Amino acid sequence: MQADHLSATFTALADPTRRAILTRLALGEASVTELAKPFDITLPAISKHLKVLETAGLISRSREAQWRPCRLQAAPLQEVAEWVGDYRKFWEESFDRLDEYLKELQKANAAESAASNAQTAQAKSTGEE
Amino acid sequence: MQADHLSATFTALADPTRRAILTRLALGEASVTELAKPFDITLPAISKHLKVLETAGLISRSREAQWRPCRLQAAPLQEVAEWVGDYRKFWEESFDRLDEYLKELQKANAAESAASNAQTAQAKSTGEE
Repeated sequence: MQADHLSATFTALADPTRRAILTRLALGEASVTELAKPFDITLPAISKHLKVLETAGLISRSREAQWRPCRLQAAPLQEVAEWVGDYRKFWEESFDRLDEYLKELQKANAAESAASNAQTAQAKSTGEE
Repeated sequence: MQADHLSATFTALADPTRRAILTRLALGEASVTELAKPFDITLPAISKHLKVLETAGLISRSREAQWRPCRLQAAPLQEVAEWVGDYRKFWEESFDRLDEYLKELQKANAAESAASNAQTAQAKSTGEE
């Protein structure tokens, strides 16, 4: 079930600690103790986060080594990238609109400043006459 | 707070109905009643989903028109795309590994089939002699 799988992935990613764990694992595999170090939380709390990540298929844990290293599994992230990629044109459109708006602002500013310069020049020349 | 904002976005996306609402809004703005139609859920349930999407900044609701149309807001989706994009090399790597593995498999199959053909040819020529 693709839909539910994607929901599980999004749920797993909806937590800053879990995202930080993935960032750490992007550098290479790590034990639970190593993963817990930078966070001010208990080992059971980390284990709970790892369970959520593992259920979503975002990490795997070796059954061989005694320290059971965790490893990043990127396939669900690719699904996220594909899902969100379908909306790319919407944020590109809003940038285009912002870009147009900024260009209009600049044009208006330039026109205003040209008018103001012309006025100053006129005032000057009137004063000099 | 970028981190919490991203968490709110992921939470909002972690539901198939909410993702379906975004898919519908990608076609154009829609009223709550229109959005509720394809789903077998009540208007209050849809309103609750819309509230979650609105809090995450994924939709906006017009205060002007009486039917208060909902509109897709793609900026949080761009943040998701950027976040997940940092992991691109990991799924590309796993595809490269899969690709290598498949090539090796094909090579092994080709070698095996060549050996088997040679054997058949030899058997044939032996039989013919």
